[in-house]
Amino acid sequence: MKKYLDEALYEYSKSNCYPFHMPGHKRNDCPKALYNPYQIDITEIDGFDNLHHAEGILKEAQKRAAALYGAEESFYLVNGSTAGLLSAVSACTSRNGTLLMARNCHKAVYHAAYLRGLQVHYLVPPCEKQTGLNGGIDPWQVREMLEQYPETEAVLITSPSYDGVVSDIEEIVRITHGHGIPLIVDEAHGAHLCFSDYFPDSALKYGADLVIQSLHKTLPSMTQTALLHVQGSLVSRTCLRRFLGIYQSSSPSYVFMSSMESCIRLLEQEGRERFASYTKRLEVCRERLKSMQCLQLIDFCQVTGKGNIYDMDRSKLIISTAGTSINGEILHLELLHNYRIQIEMTAPSYILALSSVMDTEEGFSRLEQALLEIDRKLCKDKGYRENMNFVQETYPHKQIQNVKIADAIESPWEEIQLEESQGEISVEFVYLYPPGIPCLVPGERITGELLEKIRVWKKQGLDIQGPADYTLEKIRIQKR
Amino acid sequence: MKKYLDEALYEYSKSNCYPFHMPGHKRNDCPKALYNPYQIDITEIDGFDNLHHAEGILKEAQKRAAALYGAEESFYLVNGSTAGLLSAVSACTSRNGTLLMARNCHKAVYHAAYLRGLQVHYLVPPCEKQTGLNGGIDPWQVREMLEQYPETEAVLITSPSYDGVVSDIEEIVRITHGHGIPLIVDEAHGAHLCFSDYFPDSALKYGADLVIQSLHKTLPSMTQTALLHVQGSLVSRTCLRRFLGIYQSSSPSYVFMSSMESCIRLLEQEGRERFASYTKRLEVCRERLKSMQCLQLIDFCQVTGKGNIYDMDRSKLIISTAGTSINGEILHLELLHNYRIQIEMTAPSYILALSSVMDTEEGFSRLEQALLEIDRKLCKDKGYRENMNFVQETYPHKQIQNVKIADAIESPWEEIQLEESQGEISVEFVYLYPPGIPCLVPGERITGELLEKIRVWKKQGLDIQGPADYTLEKIRIQKR
Repeated sequence: MKKYLDEALYEYSKSNCYPFHMPGHKRNDCPKALYNPYQIDITEIDGFDNLHHAEGILKEAQKRAAALYGAEESFYLVNGSTAGLLSAVSACTSRNGTLLMARNCHKAVYHAAYLRGLQVHYLVPPCEKQTGLNGGIDPWQVREMLEQYPETEAVLITSPSYDGVVSDIEEIVRITHGHGIPLIVDEAHGAHLCFSDYFPDSALKYGADLVIQSLHKTLPSMTQTALLHVQGSLVSRTCLRRFLGIYQSSSPSYVFMSSMESCIRLLEQEGRERFASYTKRLEVCRERLKSMQCLQLIDFCQVTGKGNIYDMDRSKLIISTAGTSINGEILHLELLHNYRIQIEMTAPSYILALSSVMDTEEGFSRLEQALLEIDRKLCKDKGYRENMNFVQETYPHKQIQNVKIADAIESPWEEIQLEESQGEISVEFVYLYPPGIPCLVPGERITGELLEKIRVWKKQGLDIQGPADYTLEKIRIQKR
Repeated sequence: MKKYLDEALYEYSKSNCYPFHMPGHKRNDCPKALYNPYQIDITEIDGFDNLHHAEGILKEAQKRAAALYGAEESFYLVNGSTAGLLSAVSACTSRNGTLLMARNCHKAVYHAAYLRGLQVHYLVPPCEKQTGLNGGIDPWQVREMLEQYPETEAVLITSPSYDGVVSDIEEIVRITHGHGIPLIVDEAHGAHLCFSDYFPDSALKYGADLVIQSLHKTLPSMTQTALLHVQGSLVSRTCLRRFLGIYQSSSPSYVFMSSMESCIRLLEQEGRERFASYTKRLEVCRERLKSMQCLQLIDFCQVTGKGNIYDMDRSKLIISTAGTSINGEILHLELLHNYRIQIEMTAPSYILALSSVMDTEEGFSRLEQALLEIDRKLCKDKGYRENMNFVQETYPHKQIQNVKIADAIESPWEEIQLEESQGEISVEFVYLYPPGIPCLVPGERITGELLEKIRVWKKQGLDIQGPADYTLEKIRIQKR
């Protein structure tokens, strides 16, 4: 029998599988939501304003979002943080201009650089050896790079990172503004930060010029909804509005906009209280998980060697498998099949479970029990230890952009065996999904180290994407 | 009391207002839809594939869409036809390349030309004098322009137009393919065409290379959902996939994808029968409306002077007010306030009511009664006739691109009074919304004729958008 997507989704919704992944509503209605979705799905009729030309109810809704987050101006996004990142980069740079960006940015930022024909320079976060976790972006690096590349028009970093690592935004804003250019912060994973002191501060607090937040990732709003916040006068609002109008559907979904409004309303009216009880329960969960003997709950990110410690968003539960007999993929499958818990992401030597204000007592305790039980088994079974657990960092240390992204993508190419591609210049991206952070960018030379990583990831069953050849046996390189 | 969007939408859904506008589901659930939306709103977890890297259930779903429409390959779009148009144009042209496009295209096509830095040349549809309706694009014009601009990389036309006017795709495909370049058809308003012989043929039938269809406009799918169909070998699929991955959220909504699947499933299983009874009822409605004496139901588009007759999509009910004492805006307000009927669009001298397969007997008869009653009043009241009813064409006849769109948008500008702008080169778009077809494009010189039109439109209360100054008192022009 054919299996239809809508039927499969419906069937899945009836299953007992608990989500420790996006979206943040955890498959519960937003408590303020009023549907049915088809009944409220309208077009720009009288009285319902126009997202791309907001003068009425949508202008007010976006003002409420700005007030809640303490931004000067906020925009509803119906094409996800993707649209926010494309618009932010496009508005801050000129055609063929220059961007300084963190190397562990989401592919949307690379896409923006491609569309705009930008020369990019990278800020490379340090890497923690044991888990493979990236640290934050160090301010000294921003300072150095801006001195080296004074033509830079904007700086973009992701904070918190996909794993929850937060950079020192306060200092980075100071440096960036010292050069008279804007700081764009991809805070897609941090829309919840400002609702509790339990979490690090939002970049908005320190005056970042553009801050992009996915509402659906950590808050009860529908997938593909997000906000773009603006502050200060370094970014042209006209320019920003223009690009938001370009990268987003001219038929924006009222169901999405309604979902965002329901979410904002909930946070306005009950945010503090709901976050108080959520973080209390989350802290209990973290305390319990700290008793694990073999698996390890990561509390902060300490990058050995440099001695840097980065603050972390503790809503993300990162469980390291380093030093145990299993890797991230095995832990993920164990949780899924034996405990019916679906997590957010699997990395070679850790998993990421995403908690949110919508999580239930049952969810938390199921996760605790599962992990503690798995941990006990692992401790008993210490003899069983394969050599499969060496860490493979997910992100590259240092890659050199030999050719501009746009030039690489648009240059003549040939497709060759991946195994024979060492030393060639790629015209394709390669990334693990999730999180979708490229480990190879068009215009970069393919290294032996990268090929080795890909071999291991393949063996571990991780989801590697980017190349036109989905089997990843071949890759497209600049014509020799 | 503050009025929240979600509450306003909910309240509206309980009202008695009947929609003769998008979306095509007419605020009824798609008969195959299974919700609640939050419960099926997931992320790319195991078993649910990835739209940007489809290998499983989403690949199959898109294959079913292709089979249903008779396309070689079809892509789900979660950022509307906008994303399809941006991707199609980007995939078919090189950076700073050349595009031949209809002047009555949707702004998304102009946006694509802007992003890609294209030189555009225009195909200008003729204009029917009495109603201001645009005709179709004439094949001889395509032939002439391709001879004049052999560097052209692709041709793009909108058919059916927003008003339902269909061009001779068969002949245009022949000419375009004769030049070895692809034809892109913006069929956003024609996703329903192939389900009944009552409607003109879809461009897919004649081998158009890329066809973009909004599912939500005329079929029971949620707003912001669309399809991009591909045929033939003139367009690189890799390139197309790349741009679809760029212009669309990396967190595509499963609610949208489920809605598309429900819609496709309904059409697969019951499409022919449902369309048979719908078109039967529609024809009855059209017959009844033909008895109007003062208002006039437009049946086909005959462009006086040239004698060309263009086929029309009869699902769109166009009621001309030409020669009566009222204009489109007054008719729209009459229908809304006295009959609780919300129509799709108001033009200076006609209105457009959009019917769909989801319309009910009650909806059709309410529309018929309302229009016949208004018509009777108008006939009685023939003495009352203001001179406000002279036709103002919505679309320009001929505009000359003095400066490339991208160069104009990105050149130094100054803001001046609109009234004093005659002869200057605009750096902004100006368009009526709906439909969002620019009457002024960045790089074009502002004519006295256009300024006169805008004055009249303002007086008629039409919604003019584009400029940063929403009041449209000022406009930004290239710095003198």
